[in-house]
Amino acid sequence: MSQPTAHRRMAPPAVNGERLLRRVEELGNIGRDAATGGITREGFSRADREARAYLLEESRSAGLAPSVDAAGNITIRPRPTGTEPERPAVLMGSHLDTVVNGGRLDGAYGVLAALEVVQACAESGIDGEFEPVAVAFANEEGALFPQPFFGSSALAGRLADLPLEPCDHEGHSLRGPLALAGGDLDALGSAVWPAESLAAYLELHVEQGPVLEQAGNRIGIVDGITGRTVITAEIRGTAGHAGTTPMPGRRDALAAASRAVLAVERIASASKLCRVATVGRLDIHPNSPNTIADTVRFTADLRDTSAPRMEEAEATLRQDLQDIARQTGTDIQIVARTYSGPVSTSSKLRGLIEQSCLELEIPFQSLPSGAGHDAQVVADITPTAMIFVPSIGGVSHVPQEDTSSADLVLGAEVLLRTALKAAHFRVH
Amino acid sequence: MSQPTAHRRMAPPAVNGERLLRRVEELGNIGRDAATGGITREGFSRADREARAYLLEESRSAGLAPSVDAAGNITIRPRPTGTEPERPAVLMGSHLDTVVNGGRLDGAYGVLAALEVVQACAESGIDGEFEPVAVAFANEEGALFPQPFFGSSALAGRLADLPLEPCDHEGHSLRGPLALAGGDLDALGSAVWPAESLAAYLELHVEQGPVLEQAGNRIGIVDGITGRTVITAEIRGTAGHAGTTPMPGRRDALAAASRAVLAVERIASASKLCRVATVGRLDIHPNSPNTIADTVRFTADLRDTSAPRMEEAEATLRQDLQDIARQTGTDIQIVARTYSGPVSTSSKLRGLIEQSCLELEIPFQSLPSGAGHDAQVVADITPTAMIFVPSIGGVSHVPQEDTSSADLVLGAEVLLRTALKAAHFRVH
Repeated sequence: MSQPTAHRRMAPPAVNGERLLRRVEELGNIGRDAATGGITREGFSRADREARAYLLEESRSAGLAPSVDAAGNITIRPRPTGTEPERPAVLMGSHLDTVVNGGRLDGAYGVLAALEVVQACAESGIDGEFEPVAVAFANEEGALFPQPFFGSSALAGRLADLPLEPCDHEGHSLRGPLALAGGDLDALGSAVWPAESLAAYLELHVEQGPVLEQAGNRIGIVDGITGRTVITAEIRGTAGHAGTTPMPGRRDALAAASRAVLAVERIASASKLCRVATVGRLDIHPNSPNTIADTVRFTADLRDTSAPRMEEAEATLRQDLQDIARQTGTDIQIVARTYSGPVSTSSKLRGLIEQSCLELEIPFQSLPSGAGHDAQVVADITPTAMIFVPSIGGVSHVPQEDTSSADLVLGAEVLLRTALKAAHFRVH
Repeated sequence: MSQPTAHRRMAPPAVNGERLLRRVEELGNIGRDAATGGITREGFSRADREARAYLLEESRSAGLAPSVDAAGNITIRPRPTGTEPERPAVLMGSHLDTVVNGGRLDGAYGVLAALEVVQACAESGIDGEFEPVAVAFANEEGALFPQPFFGSSALAGRLADLPLEPCDHEGHSLRGPLALAGGDLDALGSAVWPAESLAAYLELHVEQGPVLEQAGNRIGIVDGITGRTVITAEIRGTAGHAGTTPMPGRRDALAAASRAVLAVERIASASKLCRVATVGRLDIHPNSPNTIADTVRFTADLRDTSAPRMEEAEATLRQDLQDIARQTGTDIQIVARTYSGPVSTSSKLRGLIEQSCLELEIPFQSLPSGAGHDAQVVADITPTAMIFVPSIGGVSHVPQEDTSSADLVLGAEVLLRTALKAAHFRVH
C-alpha cells in the first residue's frame, strides 16, 4: 500500500533578520577605509569584484542559482533557469557599487534584502504565478566608469547608443574590467530583458534624506523618482586688480555668480517652482585674493517629480541668468545641460506596499525620491515601486550613512510582503 | 698767464626718451615667456638676477656708481660714495621683480626712469643741495619668497622682527638666493638708511587701473596709498544630497557665501563705506554638483585711504557676516586678518609734481593708489610721493599691461622736474 503524499504544512516565508544584518556587516567590510570608515567600491573596481564574489558565494551557499549577464548584472533565482516552466519575474534589487568614500547601505542594502526575500521564499517552498528574482545591477553610481545605471540600462535595452568603447575618465576601456566581472562588452544585447519576462520591479533603499526620520515614519512609499536638470553655466567678466579697479565699471564674475547661486536657491525656496535647487559646484578663475574674478563656471541642479514644473523652473532660471548678466555687465552662457525626466511609480504596487505597512501596523508615508535609482530605468519596461527606510541624520554618500537595525529588518519584511502580494503567490 | 676757467654753459638735464624706451624694451625681454608675452621675474629668482645684472651693467656703462646692499637693493649714485661730501638723497625708484606672468612695466619702469633721471643729472653736470639716487628695491611682489617689500622694509628698518631664516613656500631659505643677488642675510642691519640720509622719496609707476585713461589725464598725483584689510572667513554648514535634502533646514555653505560676497560688494558700492571691496578667492568643499557644500572659505579685501573708513567698513562686514550666519543657519568664523594702514603722501612733494605738470601744460589729476608700493614703506622715514602714468585698458599684473611710449617718456620728464625742484638743484 502506497503511503499517501504527506500534506506538508509549510511555514509562510519570513525574513531572517540576523542573516540579513550579518550580510550587511560583511559586505560593508569590502572596500572599507579603516581610517574614515567610508566605503569605496567603484563599479568594476577590484573592491566591486570582491563584493560580487561575496554575493555569488552567499547565494550559492544558500542553494540559490546566481548568474552574471553580459552587462555584469548578477541575478539570483530560487532555482536554475530551465529547471521549471518560465514565469515572469518579480525582480527585486539595487546595486553593489558605491561612490568614493560612501556608506555601506546605499545599494548594498537593497541587494541583500532582495537576496533575503528570494532565499526566504525558496526555503519556505512557497511558489507563485511569478518568480521572485534578486538582482545586483552593475555600476549604478558611475564613479569610475561614467556610465551610471549601466546594468539597469542594459537590462531595459537602453544601451543601443552606447559608445563602442565606453571608457573611464582616464581613457581606459570598460572592456577588460567588465570581462573580469563576468560580463562581455560585445554581447550587451543578451542582457536585455523583454518586457513580458517581468511582472514588476521593487527596489528597497535607504531614503538618503531626513524626511522619514523627522516625521517619525518607518517606511516611505516612493510616489515618484525625481527628474533632474543639471545646467552648467559660465560667467565671463573682466579680471582686474582688486585695489586699483574702481567699483563702477567692474565686471566681477564672482559677484555675478553669487547672484546666480541665490537665484537658483530662490527658485525652489521662495518661489517653490521645483522641489529642490542647488549649486554644489562653482569654479573660479583666477581665484586670487587680489584679483577680480574673470570667469566662474557653476552647476545648477533642479529637481522635481513634475516635468512641467521642471520646465518652468528651468525657464525661470534662464531668465534670471539673463537679468543677472545685464545687471552685472557680464556674459553668461549655458555651456552644458543634462536632463532625466521624472518617473512615476506604479499605483498598484504602491497600494501593495501600503497594505503591507498596514498589516505590520507601522507608521509610513508617501514621498518622492530625490535621488536617482535603477528603478527609474527599469520603469521603462515594467511597473516599478520603491520602498524607503529612514536614514539616520538624513545623510548618505558619506561614511556616516546609517539606518537602525530594526528599520533594516523591517524594510526587508515590507519588501517580502509586497513581493508575495505582487507575485500572487500560492503555497504548494 | 693762466687761462681763466671757462664758464661752461650747461644744458639743463633732460630725459633721453629713446634711451629710456630702449631700456624698457631690453629689460622687458628678461624673464619673458615667448608664448604669452608675460614676464616672470620673481624676486631672487634666476630671471630676477639677470635683470639685476642688466641694471648694474647699464649704470656702469653710463659712468654712474651702482652698488648692492645686504638686502639686495641696488642703488645708483651719480658718483661713487666718498668721492664728495655726503648729502641727503632724493631717492627715486621702484622694483625689478614681477608676479608670475606679469607685465613689463610694473616696477621696472620706475627703476629705469629713476636711472634716466640720475644719468641726465650726471650728464648735465648739474648739482644740488641733495643727491639724486636711483634705487631698485628687492622683492617688492613677494611672488617667490613671501616677504613682499623686502628691500624697502630693510631700508626703512622694518626687518627687525623678520624670522631668522625667511623661506619660500616650499621651505627653501632666502639665504642662498639673497647671497647670489649680492646680499647678506646676516647683515640686513647695514641696509638701513637713517632718516637724515634722505630728503625725499619719489616713485614713478603705472597706474594699474583705468582712472587716468578714462579721464583723459596723462599724469596722476597720488594723494595716498590705500590701506588694505584682508579678512579670511570660513563658513561651515552641513553637506547633504542635492536631490534628497529638502530646502527648509538646509545649511548650505555656498548659499551663505554668496550672500557674503554680495555684502562685501555692497560695502564699497551701495554703502560706499570704503573705496573698493572684493572677494577674489573662494574655495568650496566638496565642490560637487550633487552635494550641498559644507564648507566655504573666502577672502574679503577692503581698501581705503582713510583708516577710520576702513575700520567702519570692516565692522559693517563683521556684522553682516553675523547676520548671514543667523539667516542661513551656518557658522561663520574669521580665521585670518591682515591689515596695512593707509599712507599719506607729502603735500609739499605733491605740490612740486603739480608744478611740473603745469609747466609741461599737460592734464593731470589727484588719485589714490589702490595697490601697495615700496613708497608706503619708505614713507616711514622720509616724505614720499608717487607719480602715475596711464595704464592702457587699466590692466596690470598681466602680459597685456602697457602704457604708450609718449606717456612713459612724459612720466620720466615729470619725475626729473620734480626731483630737480625737490633737490633744490643749482647749476655749478
